[in-house]
Amino acid sequence: MAQQRRDLERTREKILAAAASEFAAKGLAGARVDAIARRARVNKQMLYYCFGSKRELYRIVLSSKLTARTHFLDALPNNIEEALLHIFDHSTADIDFVRMLQWEALEPTGDARLVAQDERRALFLKGIEKFSQAQRQGFIPADVDPRHLLISFIACSVFPLAFRQMIHLLTGLEPTDPKFRRQRRQFLGWLGRRLADKPHAAINSHRVNGTSRASRSKAANTTLSKSP
Amino acid sequence: MAQQRRDLERTREKILAAAASEFAAKGLAGARVDAIARRARVNKQMLYYCFGSKRELYRIVLSSKLTARTHFLDALPNNIEEALLHIFDHSTADIDFVRMLQWEALEPTGDARLVAQDERRALFLKGIEKFSQAQRQGFIPADVDPRHLLISFIACSVFPLAFRQMIHLLTGLEPTDPKFRRQRRQFLGWLGRRLADKPHAAINSHRVNGTSRASRSKAANTTLSKSP
Repeated sequence: MAQQRRDLERTREKILAAAASEFAAKGLAGARVDAIARRARVNKQMLYYCFGSKRELYRIVLSSKLTARTHFLDALPNNIEEALLHIFDHSTADIDFVRMLQWEALEPTGDARLVAQDERRALFLKGIEKFSQAQRQGFIPADVDPRHLLISFIACSVFPLAFRQMIHLLTGLEPTDPKFRRQRRQFLGWLGRRLADKPHAAINSHRVNGTSRASRSKAANTTLSKSP
Repeated sequence: MAQQRRDLERTREKILAAAASEFAAKGLAGARVDAIARRARVNKQMLYYCFGSKRELYRIVLSSKLTARTHFLDALPNNIEEALLHIFDHSTADIDFVRMLQWEALEPTGDARLVAQDERRALFLKGIEKFSQAQRQGFIPADVDPRHLLISFIACSVFPLAFRQMIHLLTGLEPTDPKFRRQRRQFLGWLGRRLADKPHAAINSHRVNGTSRASRSKAANTTLSKSP
């Protein structure tokens, strides 16, 4: 019995990995159950037995990616520069997710609800709440709409992955090239320091996440006193 | 003869408009010549007579959009805040173009060259040159890579159009909604002022484009003296 459960679990995981690749390559509408079964080396009946339908399989793939992002948001630093780099590093780690969302945006949806709409909304609300909290704590300037800052941080991270042909023309590099990532991180660091109220406080401030404003200022001063 | 030429010209324009819609809806691979002919109310033979092939039709549609962007780049203000708003206003005016590029990014290309690759490269080089020039003139901080600033300005403008489902969840608005555009312009204005070396110089500085640094500073001072 235990062996059978383990086998079934392994089969489910193989199907989910194959489905993630197929959905990234073709989108929900374009993906074919046959192709997913072939990629996973299982038969189609097994796939339907495990997941019921293509849409349900898509929901589960997306849902697990959203859960990963919830954890990533929990660890989002308050400091703007670090938050930007955190978002960039996590976005570039999962291009399949970017492509799935891009297919969604292009496919005609009619009146259909987004798959996993409530989970996504909860995730965004959490992101906005994180940004608003950082704003109340003085990490983000008071005169900016945190929602639009969040949109822009995601945009600066995800756009190069989503429009790779543009990045290639502009830089001669693929957006996944370590050299491009280094250049991009350097730029995002600059951007974060520009946007923070106390730019120099950004350097080395990973030590101060989650601490009070008073101790943050102290840490910032320490950092500043080290600067030339 | 003149009448025939005018008729042919009108037919070509109808086909190009229909093709732009079809390519935006389905991408180059997904678009069907039948559907373009139907949209344009011409027969397929006429379409082939005017344009030769689907790919050539795509090239011409794209090429005319690139030409429009060349003019738009010529008019790009030096001032960061205005440059950002200029890019935003022009990006949101042509969603078809964004969708065409998005389809391109998703479709497997194999070893095929990008359609109109040389024109695109020339356009980007022009954009980078504009930014570098603004940097030499002191409008853009000296310590930033102008290519990555350009990528980010395009990203901040285009991303909401490209991932409309995300914008809807985050703000309850479509990215084409005038209310969203107002919010976004307000944010981009804030961003531009933050990134400029002399933030307050940005206000009303459209009067000073193309003038020397000295007269720019003078205009900035005038503007500042008007502030409360």
